[in-house]
Amino acid sequence: MSKAAKIVAAALSLTLLAATASAQVVGKTEDQIRFRQSAYTTMGWSVLRIKANVEGTYNKDQVIEAANVIQAIANSKMGTLYQPGSDKGKGWEPTRLKSEFFTDKEGVPKVAGPFIKAANEMGKAAASGDQLAVTEAYEALTKTCDGCHDKFKRK
Amino acid sequence: MSKAAKIVAAALSLTLLAATASAQVVGKTEDQIRFRQSAYTTMGWSVLRIKANVEGTYNKDQVIEAANVIQAIANSKMGTLYQPGSDKGKGWEPTRLKSEFFTDKEGVPKVAGPFIKAANEMGKAAASGDQLAVTEAYEALTKTCDGCHDKFKRK
Repeated sequence: MSKAAKIVAAALSLTLLAATASAQVVGKTEDQIRFRQSAYTTMGWSVLRIKANVEGTYNKDQVIEAANVIQAIANSKMGTLYQPGSDKGKGWEPTRLKSEFFTDKEGVPKVAGPFIKAANEMGKAAASGDQLAVTEAYEALTKTCDGCHDKFKRK
Repeated sequence: MSKAAKIVAAALSLTLLAATASAQVVGKTEDQIRFRQSAYTTMGWSVLRIKANVEGTYNKDQVIEAANVIQAIANSKMGTLYQPGSDKGKGWEPTRLKSEFFTDKEGVPKVAGPFIKAANEMGKAAASGDQLAVTEAYEALTKTCDGCHDKFKRK
């Protein structure tokens, strides 16, 4: 490695360290895996609640409650639950996170960004009480779930 | 049973049925247990995040993110995940819900009400950014967690 490359590498390491320090990490690997499995399952419950409303009798309050849960979790920096090495281990069950999650530096924001955006749009649509807007936001949101699962979750 | 008692019983059944119909139930017993274990674990993660902030370096955004998760879940009608019979069964793990949950009709609102109130107070305190208010709200909130666990959760 050239001296310049070494300096760049050292600077990059420091930047990554700083990023890790400013993010908030709680729990060991097993806890992180259980926390993220729990958070996705809680969002899954909320998605099912919205689905039942858009496909059946619409109840504005139920949709708002469920959308608030999804939006709050989506904006809670779940990325901190993906510390290096957490593609192996067991939370409630063995993680299905693909190792590519830690190497595909461009791929992760490409799925995380649209998910957070869709969750925020879902919150807005829910608050409006407009069933058509909610249906569209629901479909857009579930596409972002699938987008990440296809890329980073083992079958 | 007298005729009057029968009429009262029938009216009560109808009221209970109506209450069940207006609440939103998704999933079978095993799903409900997994959803509630997930929701409490997600709140547990968020409580740990707030704890780290009140005991260490305070970061307003982290506390808001975590408090939003707790508040959204607390207000999401988790009671619908406690359908009769769900004191037995397995979600991620066997449920530890005591059967008294379904018979102690006065005890449940006595623990659920203060929990929801404390979660809402936590949200307000987080938004204010006042570390002392957050510390007090955090302590009040965790007391309501313990209050319910002592009464309705098996060791």
